[in-house]
Amino acid sequence: MAERKKIIIDTDPGIDDAMAIFLALKSPEVEVIGLTTIFGNVYTTLATRNALHLKGTKLRIADFVHGNDGLGNQNFPPPKRQPIELSAADFLIRQANLYPGKVTVVALGPLTNIALAIQSDPSFVKNIGQIVLLGGAFVVNGNVNPAAEANIFGDPEAADIVFTSGADVLAVGINVTHQVVLTDADREKLAESNGKFAQYLNKILDVYFSYHHDAYSTKGVYLHDPTALLAAVKPSLITCTEGAVRVQTTGITRGLTLFYNKKKSFEEVTEWSDKPSVKVAVTVDAPTVVKLVMERLMHS
Amino acid sequence: MAERKKIIIDTDPGIDDAMAIFLALKSPEVEVIGLTTIFGNVYTTLATRNALHLKGTKLRIADFVHGNDGLGNQNFPPPKRQPIELSAADFLIRQANLYPGKVTVVALGPLTNIALAIQSDPSFVKNIGQIVLLGGAFVVNGNVNPAAEANIFGDPEAADIVFTSGADVLAVGINVTHQVVLTDADREKLAESNGKFAQYLNKILDVYFSYHHDAYSTKGVYLHDPTALLAAVKPSLITCTEGAVRVQTTGITRGLTLFYNKKKSFEEVTEWSDKPSVKVAVTVDAPTVVKLVMERLMHS
Repeated sequence: MAERKKIIIDTDPGIDDAMAIFLALKSPEVEVIGLTTIFGNVYTTLATRNALHLKGTKLRIADFVHGNDGLGNQNFPPPKRQPIELSAADFLIRQANLYPGKVTVVALGPLTNIALAIQSDPSFVKNIGQIVLLGGAFVVNGNVNPAAEANIFGDPEAADIVFTSGADVLAVGINVTHQVVLTDADREKLAESNGKFAQYLNKILDVYFSYHHDAYSTKGVYLHDPTALLAAVKPSLITCTEGAVRVQTTGITRGLTLFYNKKKSFEEVTEWSDKPSVKVAVTVDAPTVVKLVMERLMHS
Repeated sequence: MAERKKIIIDTDPGIDDAMAIFLALKSPEVEVIGLTTIFGNVYTTLATRNALHLKGTKLRIADFVHGNDGLGNQNFPPPKRQPIELSAADFLIRQANLYPGKVTVVALGPLTNIALAIQSDPSFVKNIGQIVLLGGAFVVNGNVNPAAEANIFGDPEAADIVFTSGADVLAVGINVTHQVVLTDADREKLAESNGKFAQYLNKILDVYFSYHHDAYSTKGVYLHDPTALLAAVKPSLITCTEGAVRVQTTGITRGLTLFYNKKKSFEEVTEWSDKPSVKVAVTVDAPTVVKLVMERLMHS
């Protein structure tokens, strides 16, 4: 049997983050060696609480999407597990050093922790296997405003550090995740299953479905985080393009991710010219992603 | 016979500007009531000289594309006609007031003159018929750098004023003009024709073809300006989408045009929310554009 890929999920749980974490735990291809938390959907203290609640460490709040507690307003009892006393960046650095080239970080929130790891340890970029990040709006409008996607908007400076670091980066943006919809019918199937994750998720999906119905007029929800997770677990589910990505950090397009395919040459040196290439997801096998999400979450 | 559309060409001639001016003069659908000049391909003094040379009419320089004199290094003798002593903005305002709703401005360079007209006369936006501008890179990389197209980059603040003015604006960006290529074979046909414009153009096209061969590896040249001109002359040659466009004026993506289709709703008010819609060209009937350019320029 092939060695399971070691993954660390950097997350701001978060309803679809919760789905992604569950999915990772039910994916035989990977071994989850850690969860680190970051602000994003909820404040970090609550994110940590939620991450512990789900398994066992800053401030933009998306509680209109995810509910005040970040888990669909269910107000679950406090978790029994305790967080370890190590910053997320230090944990990432330690694990990358321990298993050089073997650890994949799946970053589901703003990229603060990853950027801190890159800045703190010059060898992190070399030691980390891959950084698969949910972030960016490539060639489409954003979801915070027409220019910016939420995770990048949460910390544009950090995102620019990650994209230009030279690490093996794969960006899964909303141009891809908006192709992956869990329908109301899928949700009903989840509700009818005996899988404990499915049952749990069913409880917390109400707020998320309501938000999507209002904002997008879609009959279902986008599987942002599960799609990014599965892109790390099964890379064949997506196709990518390669080029340099820079993040605008000021002005009306703050948080914009601008991809340059390195084909057209320019008369002058540009801010993209000497930057390393990253991978950017372009297409996704959406039916298979949804199928895998359903199967794995419904399995007891 | 239908009334001919009155057009003013605001231009930075410029090789493909020259083609567009010739094309306008040979287009029975329109009456060219003026040429105004703007910096861009060459300094404004030279642009004015070149415009006068072409018909009888300020500072980023694109002389690597257009030759040092802006007309393919031909160093034509000084023109005999004289410019009128009126600023471009004042000329635009005067004509718009004279023929309310009847004048189309075809803006082929940076949008400084148009923005000045908008700022100087509150009724200009209402009186001008349409502003058809060659500018922007919508959902594609720019041509100055990955973020910005040359005309918008030339004066991003002016461009943002024009796009948000409420005027009837049609933007023809490089996403569209890069679909319209005059091939080496087309050029040979021009060289063989007796049309005086064709003969003139043939002389000045060398530098332009060389630049395209080097920068784009294309066997031909993009017909940026002629395409924008024809979009004004024959609107059926293009299809458009509508939405708000803002221009980034600072940072690494200075000059970026960001289009918002107004479909997705956002939780918070954005910099696009209350801005009027403009038209942005999406597709072009490229074969017909090339055919019209050839026919009209080869006709004596």
